[in-house]
Amino acid sequence: MRFGLFCSPKADSDGLGPETGQGFRDYLDFNVEAEALGFHSSFSVEHHFTGWNQVSATLMLLMALAMRTKTLRLGTAVMVLPWHNPVLLAEQAATLDLVSEGRLDFGIGKGYRHSEFKGFAIAPEEAEARFEEAIEIITRSWTTRTRFSHHGRFWNFDDIVVEPPPAQNPHPPFWVAAGNPHSIARAASRGFNLILDQYASSQTLRERIAIFKAERAAKGLKFNSMQVTVARQLYIAKDKADKEAALVKQAEYTQRTINVARSPDAKTGSHVLAYADRAGATEEHALFGTPDEIARMLDALRDAGVDYILLTISGGKEQLRRFAREIMPAFVSGPSARAAE
Amino acid sequence: MRFGLFCSPKADSDGLGPETGQGFRDYLDFNVEAEALGFHSSFSVEHHFTGWNQVSATLMLLMALAMRTKTLRLGTAVMVLPWHNPVLLAEQAATLDLVSEGRLDFGIGKGYRHSEFKGFAIAPEEAEARFEEAIEIITRSWTTRTRFSHHGRFWNFDDIVVEPPPAQNPHPPFWVAAGNPHSIARAASRGFNLILDQYASSQTLRERIAIFKAERAAKGLKFNSMQVTVARQLYIAKDKADKEAALVKQAEYTQRTINVARSPDAKTGSHVLAYADRAGATEEHALFGTPDEIARMLDALRDAGVDYILLTISGGKEQLRRFAREIMPAFVSGPSARAAE
Repeated sequence: MRFGLFCSPKADSDGLGPETGQGFRDYLDFNVEAEALGFHSSFSVEHHFTGWNQVSATLMLLMALAMRTKTLRLGTAVMVLPWHNPVLLAEQAATLDLVSEGRLDFGIGKGYRHSEFKGFAIAPEEAEARFEEAIEIITRSWTTRTRFSHHGRFWNFDDIVVEPPPAQNPHPPFWVAAGNPHSIARAASRGFNLILDQYASSQTLRERIAIFKAERAAKGLKFNSMQVTVARQLYIAKDKADKEAALVKQAEYTQRTINVARSPDAKTGSHVLAYADRAGATEEHALFGTPDEIARMLDALRDAGVDYILLTISGGKEQLRRFAREIMPAFVSGPSARAAE
Repeated sequence: MRFGLFCSPKADSDGLGPETGQGFRDYLDFNVEAEALGFHSSFSVEHHFTGWNQVSATLMLLMALAMRTKTLRLGTAVMVLPWHNPVLLAEQAATLDLVSEGRLDFGIGKGYRHSEFKGFAIAPEEAEARFEEAIEIITRSWTTRTRFSHHGRFWNFDDIVVEPPPAQNPHPPFWVAAGNPHSIARAASRGFNLILDQYASSQTLRERIAIFKAERAAKGLKFNSMQVTVARQLYIAKDKADKEAALVKQAEYTQRTINVARSPDAKTGSHVLAYADRAGATEEHALFGTPDEIARMLDALRDAGVDYILLTISGGKEQLRRFAREIMPAFVSGPSARAAE
């Protein structure tokens, strides 16, 4: 198996305001240590206008991380395409891919937070069409070394060659978060990699991976279990009381995300809301427990066909180290990881 | 006096294609050495669609440089505001300012290349209005920690708080390139710093600095000679023939820039074209010559009130080292530099 991190960097840090940038430095230090401990990748969110100091310029922070790491894959989870000029985004991502020597994993999404659609003054109804047009432009920008023009519904470009090209050939892999069978099949048929959410049970994950695999086969594309990653919350608990307290804290955090995503009329849907609109939706499948309990949960995930997990670690470096020392060794050297190389 | 660099990074490098990113690594190495040699700053261009592999995602590359340097000021010369969503740009720039611990010098411009206006499908006639609206939004984004909305001619934002804030207080300095008296006075009255071009003589520079200084005084703003920087080409020649050859090469490069900036009907004007539309416009005032000749030219610039120079060094590290060793020492420790601290 492989393990990566799912991060939500913040500019502030315990009592140090966002203008210090201490939270970003903490994030960098955390990830440098994760690389040293054997983590494969680190994916970061992109968010705007929350008032919580969440990272907004995700590719900028990943560039900083690129300069402090050597092997860590640098992922976005996800860049929300409707907010960005696709040519500028292609340039920024390619620059990161070059400087990091081909380590970019380009996770993309349509957006789900009402407050962000409102903030950017973009209608949620346009999200799908913007997403599709942006993918077309970005792919073309990365793979075309001659001049082209694009005249679309949302963007126009005339006689351009987009520079620089990325380092990876033909381009950095696209990753998409998908939950329903149609979206999963669509991702598979386009050759995109798949991020499965933290709200699904092992049985559900097994079904989704089967859909992905079947659709790739139907398109004549090879399947590799590392094309699918699953997000999970992690908390290594001292005992039952410690675990319960962590679950309560996690539920509050989940609720805050649900609140900001939902529109005042509660009509705006999203892939997150579809799974997380009740308390406990995350916690039910979170990797919260003692090392033995977590190992059993990882066994179940592996049995379901999951070989690559992105961990959200909220307990700081002590949790990171404990996971790497007490849990990870039994899984990263297993036959599953070797088979996927 | 202070010396900085004016850079035009490219993704490719002598025989190594842009997909290697070697040119960007060369740029980083060059600037790391410049910092060690006592250079104060490094400003980089932003360009798109030339087919020459010029840097497009300038803030991304400056973030990489931030991670390899400690004191070097990180400048843009310039970010072309009409191309960018001003809120995304404010977020990216603030993230760089935080991670670099307050080292961003935010040079901004309206754009001048016909090929870029065409590429982004933006009318040159809109450049001025887009520039002004973007400055308003960026300044507000950086200095407002409560929610606001903006409904303008080009951009709309609803109920946003832009995060993160920058490290510098109240925000990173704006730098603008200006040449005519009206533009210089306008920059001064807004509290912006000034980039003067490589096409002006010492006498012209003296007049321009006087306008800048007078306008700041009129607004009750303190004047410091480090608020003005002057761009100059540098080439330390072995002898007369070497100097002549370098001037010819430079003229070819200048001509290429003029060609790409000019529209097919030759009507689109620009601050560059206004000064550089004849062969030799740059070369006339370039710092090309022996160390003694260059020192005399620097004396003349200093006499004209110029205390801060951005050098374009096209001859590689050998030229950088020679300048730092043979020319710089006599100028950086002078009374002028001390007075400005």
